[in-house]
Amino acid sequence: MTTIYLDHNATAPLYPEVLEAMRPYLSNEFGNPSSLHQLGQRARKAVEEARAQMAAFIGADDPSEIVFTSGGTESDNLAIQGMWAVSQQKGKRVVSSNIEHAAVRQVLRQMAASHQIDLTLVPVEPDGIVRGEDVEKSITPDTILISIMTANNEIGTLQPIPEIAELCRRKNIPFHTDAVQAAGKMRIRVNEMGGDLLSLSGHKFGGPKGVGILYVRRGTRLMGMIHGGRQEKNWRGGTENVAGIVGMAKAADITRKNLGREIIRLKNLRDKFEHEILARIPDTHINGDTVKRLPNTSNIRFDDTDNTAMVMALDLAGISVSNGSACASGSPEPSHVLLALGLPQHQAHACIRFSLGSTTTEKDMDETLRILPRVVAKLREIKVPL
Amino acid sequence: MTTIYLDHNATAPLYPEVLEAMRPYLSNEFGNPSSLHQLGQRARKAVEEARAQMAAFIGADDPSEIVFTSGGTESDNLAIQGMWAVSQQKGKRVVSSNIEHAAVRQVLRQMAASHQIDLTLVPVEPDGIVRGEDVEKSITPDTILISIMTANNEIGTLQPIPEIAELCRRKNIPFHTDAVQAAGKMRIRVNEMGGDLLSLSGHKFGGPKGVGILYVRRGTRLMGMIHGGRQEKNWRGGTENVAGIVGMAKAADITRKNLGREIIRLKNLRDKFEHEILARIPDTHINGDTVKRLPNTSNIRFDDTDNTAMVMALDLAGISVSNGSACASGSPEPSHVLLALGLPQHQAHACIRFSLGSTTTEKDMDETLRILPRVVAKLREIKVPL
Repeated sequence: MTTIYLDHNATAPLYPEVLEAMRPYLSNEFGNPSSLHQLGQRARKAVEEARAQMAAFIGADDPSEIVFTSGGTESDNLAIQGMWAVSQQKGKRVVSSNIEHAAVRQVLRQMAASHQIDLTLVPVEPDGIVRGEDVEKSITPDTILISIMTANNEIGTLQPIPEIAELCRRKNIPFHTDAVQAAGKMRIRVNEMGGDLLSLSGHKFGGPKGVGILYVRRGTRLMGMIHGGRQEKNWRGGTENVAGIVGMAKAADITRKNLGREIIRLKNLRDKFEHEILARIPDTHINGDTVKRLPNTSNIRFDDTDNTAMVMALDLAGISVSNGSACASGSPEPSHVLLALGLPQHQAHACIRFSLGSTTTEKDMDETLRILPRVVAKLREIKVPL
Repeated sequence: MTTIYLDHNATAPLYPEVLEAMRPYLSNEFGNPSSLHQLGQRARKAVEEARAQMAAFIGADDPSEIVFTSGGTESDNLAIQGMWAVSQQKGKRVVSSNIEHAAVRQVLRQMAASHQIDLTLVPVEPDGIVRGEDVEKSITPDTILISIMTANNEIGTLQPIPEIAELCRRKNIPFHTDAVQAAGKMRIRVNEMGGDLLSLSGHKFGGPKGVGILYVRRGTRLMGMIHGGRQEKNWRGGTENVAGIVGMAKAADITRKNLGREIIRLKNLRDKFEHEILARIPDTHINGDTVKRLPNTSNIRFDDTDNTAMVMALDLAGISVSNGSACASGSPEPSHVLLALGLPQHQAHACIRFSLGSTTTEKDMDETLRILPRVVAKLREIKVPL
């Protein structure tokens, strides 16, 4: 059975060229970039070329603004913990939104629980978008960091990053954005967006898992979180994951080249899919703003269904989707994002995320449209009333 | 020119079977282990199988004692920061040695500088080995953690881990050992060694870079350092590096199978090499105890030479060696390990580390023995007196 993979927001398939780019660094070119000899220095060169590619991917002024990490979660943790560590004299207030990914949400909760920070979570409107004026109102004189995601991972809504970054610049407050879910689905230009810190993860745009970056704008003070060798200018100790770094950079290059075309293609596929679903299946609703949204993401509520059962049923039919963010899957709790939109629990448990990507074809979507109405009908039949 | 690679302590070449084991997870089997669908669950299965393999590699009672990390440095940081975070009520004293790898040394320094901990570094004897009684004497009632490496990365000396672990058990103090450099060069059995926390890094024993483990003995309290999704029982958030984890586990299996044979083979090659060097080149000395030592490591002082020049000269002759730990290479400072043995600066700058491994042949060593005397003679000729 061929799988129709509509879970690209959980993780994207590697581009075949990415594995090819990684292969030398998983065989003969195995040097440690910190070694002085030629084998080591060739690995160093590969890492620094990848740094320049990642800088180009996000429009950074200088490759030295790129810090390689083990992924998006570490990048978010480094941004938040690292900024906190250099800001304690100023205060302890951190402002974020109530729809952040667990990689931001959980580190903030942890730090608040241990009294390291005071935390303000700005609510989003029912459209899944936080308002700049609400962020502004939440700022206190002791605010040391504002962290708002670029695009939500569950519903795809785009946050007003340039507006919030500019607000932070005026008030001289460091600004971080988790752009993990945005990469590969919209153009990321750090200078147009503004802000000081930006997180990306390789496996969300066709690179390998276990590697990411934190963009640190020149002049930004930050303390490292993982201390060891002098790698990454002391911001991140540990032997570099050379193959992973090279693979992520290759994925960034491919993504950059195809992005304009892909945005239009995915949006057309997604919009047509949603239109048909709403037309063919009664009592269905799109979650979040349908315009200010990633082009590949569709989060749909199918009233009177259970989304875990739906994921399983679609999986058996060869279609991979998600009932929320992968990182929270398996949890009996409803999505904090959907609750933040104002959905009651039973509705939050009736929502499915479809996320398209580079491998998605029109045939995939047609097949999904063929199967989905039957699955929904079946689930509604057997649904035990709450 | 064929390179003779005698820098296995910096990083080891991947076993070809490791890349083969990783390949599916870098192509079709790209699922996120947290996804509920079959593609995700196959990735989950691969991660959990790898966890069992890693448990078997170190003789752990239960796979649930294995936490996957991004490498040895993160493992060391997690052990130390994570233990500190749950022990603040007890005190703030941490005891370690003065020959630890940067991954332990720097996080302790950082935490001491920010007044999070009080740090005692127990000195080693001139043989490069810390004495159990010296560790015992340094323990105070407010000691919350003792961290002593299993084997030194620069000179290979083995520390009395079972003795120190037993001491810690008696005194009810958590014990961590950085076994990164020991793996693949000696048998690691966590129950014979004792202790609560043990760090390993995949790339030191033929696995990929960017992945490691922290062994956490059942019942040990520990706070996570990287917070995000519920991966790794909340000890380490972030999508698992599936391919890296599978590759490391494969390397562990291969290492385990060959280890007995390899220890004898490498020791014979190393001992013969040292014997010949001492016989053929005047004013040469072995650093550290020559018996209580990893079988693959040889750190030799060539009086009146400069080790950076020596690394370069040998590199040009096709031989890759190191002038210390790779993580500190490029630094003008002398090795803290060699200074800890009591060497004066100019002698510490005259030492070279030869580290053998799975690819090392008798021919490699013969060729090195042929070239080395000429290189040393040449360097001694041109050496500007200090």
